[in-house]
Amino acid sequence: MSDQISAIQLLIQSLDLVGTAAFAITGALKAIEHKSDIVGIIILATITGVAGGVLRDITFGTFPPLAISNPLYAATTISAGVAMFFLYRVIQKHWNLLLKFDAIGLGVFTVIGSTFAYQIVGLNFLAMAFAGLITAVGGGILRDVFVKEMPIVFVKELYATASFAGIVLFFCLLSVGLDLYSAAVPSIVSVTLLRLLAMKYGWNLPRPKI
Amino acid sequence: MSDQISAIQLLIQSLDLVGTAAFAITGALKAIEHKSDIVGIIILATITGVAGGVLRDITFGTFPPLAISNPLYAATTISAGVAMFFLYRVIQKHWNLLLKFDAIGLGVFTVIGSTFAYQIVGLNFLAMAFAGLITAVGGGILRDVFVKEMPIVFVKELYATASFAGIVLFFCLLSVGLDLYSAAVPSIVSVTLLRLLAMKYGWNLPRPKI
Amino acid sequence: MSDQISAIQLLIQSLDLVGTAAFAITGALKAIEHKSDIVGIIILATITGVAGGVLRDITFGTFPPLAISNPLYAATTISAGVAMFFLYRVIQKHWNLLLKFDAIGLGVFTVIGSTFAYQIVGLNFLAMAFAGLITAVGGGILRDVFVKEMPIVFVKELYATASFAGIVLFFCLLSVGLDLYSAAVPSIVSVTLLRLLAMKYGWNLPRPKI
Repeated sequence: MSDQISAIQLLIQSLDLVGTAAFAITGALKAIEHKSDIVGIIILATITGVAGGVLRDITFGTFPPLAISNPLYAATTISAGVAMFFLYRVIQKHWNLLLKFDAIGLGVFTVIGSTFAYQIVGLNFLAMAFAGLITAVGGGILRDVFVKEMPIVFVKELYATASFAGIVLFFCLLSVGLDLYSAAVPSIVSVTLLRLLAMKYGWNLPRPKI
Repeated sequence: MSDQISAIQLLIQSLDLVGTAAFAITGALKAIEHKSDIVGIIILATITGVAGGVLRDITFGTFPPLAISNPLYAATTISAGVAMFFLYRVIQKHWNLLLKFDAIGLGVFTVIGSTFAYQIVGLNFLAMAFAGLITAVGGGILRDVFVKEMPIVFVKELYATASFAGIVLFFCLLSVGLDLYSAAVPSIVSVTLLRLLAMKYGWNLPRPKI
Repeated sequence: MSDQISAIQLLIQSLDLVGTAAFAITGALKAIEHKSDIVGIIILATITGVAGGVLRDITFGTFPPLAISNPLYAATTISAGVAMFFLYRVIQKHWNLLLKFDAIGLGVFTVIGSTFAYQIVGLNFLAMAFAGLITAVGGGILRDVFVKEMPIVFVKELYATASFAGIVLFFCLLSVGLDLYSAAVPSIVSVTLLRLLAMKYGWNLPRPKI
């Protein structure tokens, strides 16, 4: 049982880095499209990849943020930035694949963020929703703001929505007594799946007529 | 006397929520104008309504921020977002009324922010000015940045200025020995009145000729 | 020896204020170009001058931030804003001179930021790089975002790069056993010089072809 938890823990940590890399690559892409140089690319890749987690850590008073105390995150985002610099055309060809990794990142970041709040303040929906959403969409919002675009989370197919739905599910599963890992796995899968389906079928939430 | 203070305290708390709702509605409006879906509308409403207070709490090291520990704020901003989604046309017709509530919010947020710093670091003008201004204009700045507009506080009729004037008055009243509530009420009224008059008569501060 | 350290300390503190003033003036200029009134000019000058340090202090859990506890910073940025309001045309004529002070600010902010992390978490490259970069470029990023421009650090001649190079040098000098002040001086000089040369000769890092 403890072995199984370790395996799940390792899987989530690996997926966390996969998500960080995918987020970082979207940041690097935006930087390249806006004619950044290599350092600008690496900085925007890093901001996109880690800013959500950093904002979450700061909001809940955890210092220094995980992305600063654990060098794996910066190593991942810097590698992603450098890779995009050299392999821009190649990676661009596989953009649909990247969006799948981005959807995995969205799921993992959501649940890691909610878990973070859960471990600090317990089973509190508001805190878990804030922490989950900030972690999942904070980096993407900053990325879009820095290149003068309307943040995708305000306009695109079930991006924040998928994250939010996952938080609700995660909260319910914990409420009915599931342990952290048994609740985490289906929640991550739901977010990722919902986002993938929304992209595939162009699902969008209603907008008011103006 | 203690009853009177309770009454004032309750009044300020109510006005705080009125201000939060008014701010949130301006955020929801911007989101709608930029074709956000319902989740984007709720998120931008929430950011506009609570980000000023969250930034203040973070800047002064209070964790978790009030807007996360007290669910009334999120309940208010989410309701405001949903209301705007369904009642966009109706609310838009009463925009002048909304701007009055917004002016009340500006006054209450200013004094609540300054009081927050006063209770942490005492009668320190710099800290009170930072906390008051961040609380009052932080949410609006983020709202405007997220929809790619020049923040209103940098360009519009005595917005930050009204807030700042209220902080100066609040500081002076506390300096001459008034208690917190006796100083708060006239300061809130001054900010709100100054902003309302500036809107009504189109008052603007001088701009350099360029 | 202790006298010499005091002299260097005083020099760095003075240069810190020179840099704060230069940064603030660039913020005031952007505000003026975007038709801000006097209060908007002062606010953007202050944000540009102190936000880097405030973000650094918040990220590492130091409350309240130095710019709030030490009134010299706000006094400097407010003076810079007022000076620009009245002397816009005069200062604009000496813009090349101002960019030199800005380069000094870049160097000083970089090393002060890195030193800050060094004193909290010791000789840790990642933490020193984060703190140095946030301090040096955080204010400029916010300034550009608030006036809806692509942040200069993502696109311009060795701006973040000069800062980063200085952090690497600073880290190496500390690693080989130099004391803080002996390491600080050449690091500051390197950043400033690299930035000045990059401006003079139009050096830019490579960009990917798209």
